[in-house]
Formats: sequence, C-alpha cells, structure tokens
Amino acid sequence: MLKSIAWIFRPYFCHSTRQLPRNFQKSMPRHSSTHCWRTHTCGELRRRHIGERVTLCGWAEFCRGKSFVILRDWQGQVQMFLTKGSAKDIPVESVIKVRGIVQSRPEKNINHALNAGDIEVHVDDIEVLNTCKSLPFSLQDFAKKGEETRMRYRYLDIRSQMMQNHLRTRSNLISSMREFLIHHHGFVEVETPTLFRPTPGGAKEFLVPSSVDNGLFYSLPQSPQQFKQLLMVGGIDRYFQVAKCYRDEGAKPDRQPEFTQLDIEMSFVSSNDVMRITESMIKKCWPKDLNDHEFPRITYQEAIEKYGTDKPDLRTKLSITNLSNLFDSKDTINCVVVPDSYHKYLSKHTADGMHSKLMHFNDECARNGIFFWENGNFEHISGDRIENYEVLSDVRIWKNSSVVWLSWGDYNQVKTTLYKAIPIVADTIESNGDSIRDEGYKFLWVYDFPLFEADGDKLSCVHHPFTAPHPDDTELIHTDPTKVRSLAYDLVLNGSEVGGGSIRIHDSSLQRHILSEHLDIETDDLEHLLYALDCGAPPHGGIALGLDRLLAMLCGTSTIRDVIAFPKSSAGRDLMCGAPCKPDRDIMDHFFKPKIR
Amino acid sequence: MLKSIAWIFRPYFCHSTRQLPRNFQKSMPRHSSTHCWRTHTCGELRRRHIGERVTLCGWAEFCRGKSFVILRDWQGQVQMFLTKGSAKDIPVESVIKVRGIVQSRPEKNINHALNAGDIEVHVDDIEVLNTCKSLPFSLQDFAKKGEETRMRYRYLDIRSQMMQNHLRTRSNLISSMREFLIHHHGFVEVETPTLFRPTPGGAKEFLVPSSVDNGLFYSLPQSPQQFKQLLMVGGIDRYFQVAKCYRDEGAKPDRQPEFTQLDIEMSFVSSNDVMRITESMIKKCWPKDLNDHEFPRITYQEAIEKYGTDKPDLRTKLSITNLSNLFDSKDTINCVVVPDSYHKYLSKHTADGMHSKLMHFNDECARNGIFFWENGNFEHISGDRIENYEVLSDVRIWKNSSVVWLSWGDYNQVKTTLYKAIPIVADTIESNGDSIRDEGYKFLWVYDFPLFEADGDKLSCVHHPFTAPHPDDTELIHTDPTKVRSLAYDLVLNGSEVGGGSIRIHDSSLQRHILSEHLDIETDDLEHLLYALDCGAPPHGGIALGLDRLLAMLCGTSTIRDVIAFPKSSAGRDLMCGAPCKPDRDIMDHFFKPKIR
Repeated sequence: MLKSIAWIFRPYFCHSTRQLPRNFQKSMPRHSSTHCWRTHTCGELRRRHIGERVTLCGWAEFCRGKSFVILRDWQGQVQMFLTKGSAKDIPVESVIKVRGIVQSRPEKNINHALNAGDIEVHVDDIEVLNTCKSLPFSLQDFAKKGEETRMRYRYLDIRSQMMQNHLRTRSNLISSMREFLIHHHGFVEVETPTLFRPTPGGAKEFLVPSSVDNGLFYSLPQSPQQFKQLLMVGGIDRYFQVAKCYRDEGAKPDRQPEFTQLDIEMSFVSSNDVMRITESMIKKCWPKDLNDHEFPRITYQEAIEKYGTDKPDLRTKLSITNLSNLFDSKDTINCVVVPDSYHKYLSKHTADGMHSKLMHFNDECARNGIFFWENGNFEHISGDRIENYEVLSDVRIWKNSSVVWLSWGDYNQVKTTLYKAIPIVADTIESNGDSIRDEGYKFLWVYDFPLFEADGDKLSCVHHPFTAPHPDDTELIHTDPTKVRSLAYDLVLNGSEVGGGSIRIHDSSLQRHILSEHLDIETDDLEHLLYALDCGAPPHGGIALGLDRLLAMLCGTSTIRDVIAFPKSSAGRDLMCGAPCKPDRDIMDHFFKPKIR
Repeated sequence: MLKSIAWIFRPYFCHSTRQLPRNFQKSMPRHSSTHCWRTHTCGELRRRHIGERVTLCGWAEFCRGKSFVILRDWQGQVQMFLTKGSAKDIPVESVIKVRGIVQSRPEKNINHALNAGDIEVHVDDIEVLNTCKSLPFSLQDFAKKGEETRMRYRYLDIRSQMMQNHLRTRSNLISSMREFLIHHHGFVEVETPTLFRPTPGGAKEFLVPSSVDNGLFYSLPQSPQQFKQLLMVGGIDRYFQVAKCYRDEGAKPDRQPEFTQLDIEMSFVSSNDVMRITESMIKKCWPKDLNDHEFPRITYQEAIEKYGTDKPDLRTKLSITNLSNLFDSKDTINCVVVPDSYHKYLSKHTADGMHSKLMHFNDECARNGIFFWENGNFEHISGDRIENYEVLSDVRIWKNSSVVWLSWGDYNQVKTTLYKAIPIVADTIESNGDSIRDEGYKFLWVYDFPLFEADGDKLSCVHHPFTAPHPDDTELIHTDPTKVRSLAYDLVLNGSEVGGGSIRIHDSSLQRHILSEHLDIETDDLEHLLYALDCGAPPHGGIALGLDRLLAMLCGTSTIRDVIAFPKSSAGRDLMCGAPCKPDRDIMDHFFKPKIR
C-alpha cells in the first residue's frame, strides 16, 4: 500500500524540474515558522526531527484510506499517519492543521520520490481549517492546461513548485541587489512618482484622467529617467529604485504593460564605472556561480560586423566572416562557417531545409546560399549561387571540410541575414543531439552605439534624448550627426538585451540643441529639466536592468510571464480578475463629465 | 578672514537641525566612493585623513578670494585651499572636482561650525565640471520660501541637509524592514499588478483607459488587498511588498494621490501573531532605541471610552472620566481632569480662551463647561453650566485643586467633545513652558473594531469587506450586525494611525453573505476571489503600514511631503514637471476615438 502512495506522490506540477538555485537553498530562511500556528514547514522535516512533537499546516495533497495524508506546503511534502480521527472525507487541497510526532519509516516503506520519504508524522490531532469545495480541474492535470487556464486560476498555478521557486528566486535576487547597492556601495533607494506628465510624442504612455482638473491627464512613466536625473541635480549622488514602469504597446507577445526595472543612476562617473559596478552586482547576487565569468565588451560596430546584431548570443560558437575583399564587387560578401566537426550533420537535404527556414524572413534577406567545402572543392548546395564562387576554393579560413553559408548584397541586409542564419544552423546541429552552444550565462557589453538613427530626413535617438554624445565626436554633431557615437551601453545576456544605460547630457545648451535642432522635440515640456541642468548639475550616468527578462533567463523559462505573480495576457488582459473592464456609470461621470464649479 | 568664513559656513538650509538618527550614522556606508571619480566624500574627511591625497567632487558652496572654496556634498562640507589656479570666477553651486592633500588647520583658524572645521584640503588641481548658470534665488534663502517654491524647484530643495537626511532615513528604514522580513522570518516579496480592474463603488480610484479595448478601463489599486489574499490561496504563506497605492481623493491637504505602504500578509495566523511580528519589526528597524517601549493594546470600545477616539495620543497624560453614575440623568456625563500641578496655568481668562477654541468645532460639540475645583468647592468658570453640578463638590477623583472640563449629552458627542478638549488643554499648559506631553514614540494597538457602521438603514464596513468577524459574535451577524466586532486592529503612533490590518474571511459562504446581505455589494465583480476561497484557502491575515506617515513621524516633520522625494501639492499637482496636463491631440485620439477594426 505504501508503495502505491510513493508512486503517486511525485510532487505535483512537474512542468519544471528546476529547483531553487543552490546558493538560495543554502540561505533558505530557517525562521519561516515564527509567529504562526505551525512549528515547522512540511518541507523542512528530516530524520533529525525524529521524536519531535510538531504542528504543521498545509494542503492535503492526497488522502488514502482513513489514516494516510500527504501534507504539502511551499517547501515540500511529508506523510501523515493518523493515529486518531479519519482522513476519509477530506477532499484533496483542503487546508489542514495537524499535531503529532515525527517518526522514522521502516526501510521497506521509504518513499524515494519524497525528500522526506524516510519519515512520517504520527498525528494525534487533525483539524480541517478550510475544506476545498471546488477545483476547476485536478491539479495533477494543471501542467497540461494552456497558459490561458493557468492565468485564469493563477492562485492555483502559484501552488506549483515551479512558480513557488520562481517567485522566491525573484524576491531573493532583488533583495541581494538591494543589499549590494545599499550596504556595499552607499546607494539610496528613492521612490519616484508614477503619476507623471504626458511627454511629447509619448504615444506608448498610459494616460490617467484627473478627477480634479477636468480635461487634464497624468501619464504612467515609461521609466523614472527624468526624476533620476533630477535627483542627481539634487545631490543624491547614488540612486537606485526597483521601479514599476509602464508601456502601452497594445497586444504584444511576451511584453507586459507594466514591468519592473532596477533603475540606477550615479554622479561623477564614466561609462566604465557604471559597467563595472553592474558586473560586480550581478556576480555577487547571481545565485549560480559566475566567478569565472567575463563580461567582455565590444563596440556596436564590432557587434554588427561580427554577429550581425547588437545583441549577440555568445553561447553559439558561430560568427560572421567578411570575404568582400576576395571579390571584385561593390557588394558586401560575408559568410558563416560551420566548423568541420559538425559537417557530418549537414547534408544537401538539411541545407535545403535550413535555407527555406531562413526564407521565411525573406522580406529582409539579402541573397544567400549554402556551400560545401571539402578538399579544396567549393560546391553550391542550396539557395542562391554567387558569381565567381570558385575564387573561394582556395581560401584557407576553413580547415578540412566545412559548410559555408554565404550572403551578399547590401551591408545591413547581409548582416541581418547571417544573424538569422546562425541559430538555424545551431538548431539543426543540435537536433542531431550534438551541442554547438555553451551552457550557462554569457554576458556581454555592447557600447559606442550611434547617437541618432535616420528615418529619411528625420533623426530619432537610438537610446533616449538625454544620452550624451561621445566626446571625440562632438564636432560631428553639427556636420554629420548620424556618425556621432553615444556614451550608451547595453548589457546582453545569451542574446537578449537585459539592460541599457548611458552617460547623460549635463550641459543645458547641448541638451537644448539636440532636442530642438536634431530631434525636433518641443522643449516647452522639458523646461524644468533644462533649467535644472543650469543649477549645478553634476556629470552623471546610469543603467536600467530589465528584471523580468533577467529573472526569466535565470530561471530558464522562455516567457517573462513565468516570473511575474499575476501577469497580463499577451493582449494586456488580466484573465483572473477581468481587467480592463467597463466601470460603473457613476465612476465614468466622475471623470468625464464637466463639473459645475 | 577665516573667522568670517567660519561664520558664513553654517550648513545651508537650517530648516531642520535634525541629523541622521544615531543607529543609521553608525551604519553609514563606508563605500560610497567606489566606482566613481572621487576617493572620498567631502563630508567624511576628518583629522585621520591628514596627509592623504584625495579626489573630491561636489558643489562650491562658497568661494572667497581666489584661494578658498567650501566644497559640499550630501555628507557635509570641507574647506579647499587652492595652491594653484583661482576660484575667483566660479559661481556658487557650480560642480567642481579637486585633487589635493588633507592638511591640519592651525588652532586659531579652526571653524567650529563645520564637522571638518579643523582640516582643509590643499588643492593643486581644480576642474569645473559644470558651471551653475542660474539659480531661482540664493539657496541660503531657500528655507524662507514657501512650500510651493520648494516643490517647484524640488531638485534644489533636495540638496538641503533636511531632505538628504529624510530620503536616506527612508531608504534605510525600508531596507531594514525588508531584511527583517526576508532574512529573519522567511517572507517573500511579491510585486502585484497596478493595472487592476475598477471595483464596484470604488469612487476613489484612478482610471486608466485601455488603448486596445476602447471603452474599457484599468484602475490603479487602493491597495494590493485582493492580490495578497490570492497569494495566500496560492501557498505563498508569508508575503510582503513595499507597495505603491493610489487614492483619488482630489485636493486634500497632506494626502498624496500615490502613497507607499508596507503590505504584509500571512497564512495560519491569529491577530496576535500579526501584531507581535509587527512590533518586533518596528523595534528592530526603528533607528532610535525602542527597547524599553511597550506596545499596549486596548479595545476600540475602551479607546472611545477613555480617550474619545480610536487613535489616542498616549503622550498626553489626560484622559476621560465617566461621571454619569453620579447624576440622576439619562445623559452621558464625562469630564477631563487636569492634575492639580497644572492648575496654576489656568485662569478664568485662559478657560474662556480654551472654551472658545473648542467651540470652533461647535457643530459636533456636546454641551460642555469648565469648572474649578478647590478645597471641596466646585465652581463654574466658563462655557455651559450643568444642573446640579454641586453634587460634584464632594467627588474625590481630584486631589487638592483641579480644573475639570465637563461635557454632557449624547454619548458620541460627549466623547468627541472631550477628545478635542484634551489637546487644547495640553497646548495651553505647554504655552506656559511646562510640559504635559511625553517625548518620543508612543505606540498603541487598538483592536476589536466594530465590523459594520450604520448610516441610516445602510451598513458599510469599518475596515474593508474582507475583514473577519470576531468568532464570539458570529450569531450577531444575523440578529444585530452593528454589534458585531471584527478581528481588525490598528497601530497608532502618537495619535496618528500608522497601520491597520485584520484577519480575513477565508470562508466563501460567509464572505458572500456579508457582501450581498449586509453591504449590498455586487458579488459579480468579486467572483474570482470567492471562487478562490473554495479552492483551499488557508486562514490568513495581515497588516499594512503607511510608510509615508511613519517616516514623517520618525523624522519629526508634520507633513508627509517632507519624506517624499517628489510629492504632489495639496491639489494633487506636480508643480515641478507640471502634471497633470493636456496631452497632444494625437495621444488623446489614440485613447478616446473609436477604432475601425
């Protein structure tokens, strides 16, 4: 009988086998049973507790016969053996409280599926605190349900080991970051307003009507950018905030209308200072060992040249090689070379498959084709054929045998094409069970972004309008603005941007010039900031880390919704509570009918 | 010459003489000069640094001649003596960077107004990082400016020692609370959504129009109440959050449309558990010594009986005495007795003054009068005369001589009258230089609040609709609901409510009954919560502390605006940025014109 219980009691919700990261397990609170009815959590009981009288509270995960109950809380499960009373009519997921003595289980009854499978609690007092009267479906089936169902009954989804781990990892990571900044580096956490003013051109902002001033609106800020700069003017020289930010992007997959960033700003710093302190923080707070990790830096231009993107994924050992100088052509001619040890996975057939996958993006693709190189023989296999490709036969960048994905045409298109080709190659190789990607976390700084990007005649800013130009390029601002580099930097992790920042402009005339001469932004709405810069603004810079994305990557999940307690659906809806919705008539009148004064 | 500098360099902005609390000074970060240009802060330099070469960055608070500059940062001031270059044309409040060697000052030149008045830095390299081109007024005059000006130029106000201390105290207090909860008691910090759904009757909520679903709205939550209860259902059994909350109360003095609360919820607890852990947290985190402090508890009824209010200020040693049983009357007859040692400050003249002050509240006042009692003689001095007051001549609750403020009539009116009389008496006594109030922090729990209050035939809830009734009063819910006590408790500090909480209802049928039978609230909008209670909801309760109010009291300031970096004016406006405002036409169209799909 016990054996069958053992079989059933693999923990629910197996949709993640991940456990809390090692360092966090070490620092697991030992005092989570102070000031409450229980003496221990279910999950903490071990052989060392044998003989102790304990009080436990939790969920009845399974009841068998009248005597056996598996009791569960966030920390784990333990078996109850009722010496008095009966568990017969207790519905699963009911909340119960028990008192009893921890006992050893005979060797033959040990349940190896449970961490505490070698003990059980002999219960002499059981109390049902709340009967579970309804469940939308059996919780064992939860993992099979789609995301919409998980969202609708999020409170049940949160009972899963995965969500418990994610939310606890989130709390611990952010708490470590706070302690690093406050205790080790003298930062001050300052809360800035979230009822802000609509900014010109801020089409992505949520509006909040004022009930006092009819026709006037607050906005929900996209970031505390202005406030943190004003704090620098105010002499709070090391600021941070775990800031809720808002972006109304309508319905986009894996974007949230509200998201959280770790917002940092420092006075009297250079780019290097901000990057270094960010690295230290991540190394110190990351619950997995990053001691031997580097945070390499490359310029924006190098990143595009070598990876075709400003957020390269350094786990993949593939990059772009420039072959333009071998050809007598105005075209950019680049390639991705697959090392010969992987040659065996790539046939004519798989090459066709890879090429047609790429052509899904055909709007943006340059001409491209896949070639095999073997024993000095360069052979076209799939896709387009480049003229005079025979000149490549003698090129010695490849060893014995290689697969070469070649692309030619416009510089930007070629780079984008090969950037997209790289994961297709990697996926194809890995579908054969081999590995071409490193495990773990590959951080990278990309810096020296351009200050502006051109859209026809119109310039817009690559980061935001407060980003300082590179001091070596100040002359170019007037003569050739698109050539101007900025003092901006992005932090990239495994091919995703997880943070971005810059040194800001602290000179009001330069700021005014960039706003009005280049970006065509009305300075009327920013006069408070421009005036502040004239009142003794220190040089300053900072960074913002996207905590949702960073946590999703730490937890190894593909969607940020898995690290947010109550996320919105991809259409921006709260499926559990039903938001947004139509307010009562009288509430609407309160906001939208002109008042008689 | 140095003497005159000494005279001038009392720190700017003397509108608070308060320093950082002692415990916080001890734990002052020693590493606030990592990863930046400076080696030290200006304010940390002391005699122990003599001989060290330092790099400092800060604001030129004063320049005298070509050689002397007082440099300031958040931590304090230190004098520069320029051995090269000139300070002649540096406007005050310019931002400069200097390099030099810390030197002792001759005994006769010591400036006792500065903490570092016995040293100076001999500077061989000075760089003006940003010239101060404009100031709305001399910063020395800042303290004299009204609050509106301080708000408009908040970034300058933040440079003051007072605001620096307040913002740093805020950061430190909240950080201590977090560490207490996470590290000592196993809590998980969970961020809950701020784009919520409008709740029925939620007239005080801000609305946020959805740009995707025209005509639908989110609301900004007044508290994370529903989400924290759903987290309990989800098995996060110890939750907290430093939560931004919103209340659209229009223009109210000393209220902010957005405010911050420390929001706590726990499963498997009784009221006592929540109160005890809150006390431990405050004692542990309060930067001033609270070791010998008690957190006494009185019921709501006792509080009204003895102090006429549910938020008594225990610093004042005055309370209400019930004399009703001495009279043959249906009226409530109560009094406040001023101990005889204070008798000397109260004359016929001051009594008239006190009485007329009280009568400013005359709408709500019961009949009342002030009497002198001396040597067994009870004499009417001011206000109304009660019939048969001679019976009081022999009452021995007063010693040799006393002043007695008597009120009679309706119970509630009498209590309110005397509650308002108490501070008038105390102020009058203290205007004579004596003291009748204790210094420091007097905490108090008030519990057993009524569950409902009646407004005519209609019931509303005293706390919120999820508050559990007292288990001894469950029968009364059906027979006499206004008599039902709740499991709610308020934390009161020096006469202000700084926190409130309760044990919540975890039984869906009781919750449904209270919502629909008593409070006349449509359950349609709460079905998600009611359903969740049926899915195995643990018994739970919690508390929310108003951090703005708590910090204002800790910092000894009368307005919460002094502990908020960028507060709104009493009319809900951001005077610095100009919010709320009229958005661009195209933004408005984006939200408020029906879309063609």
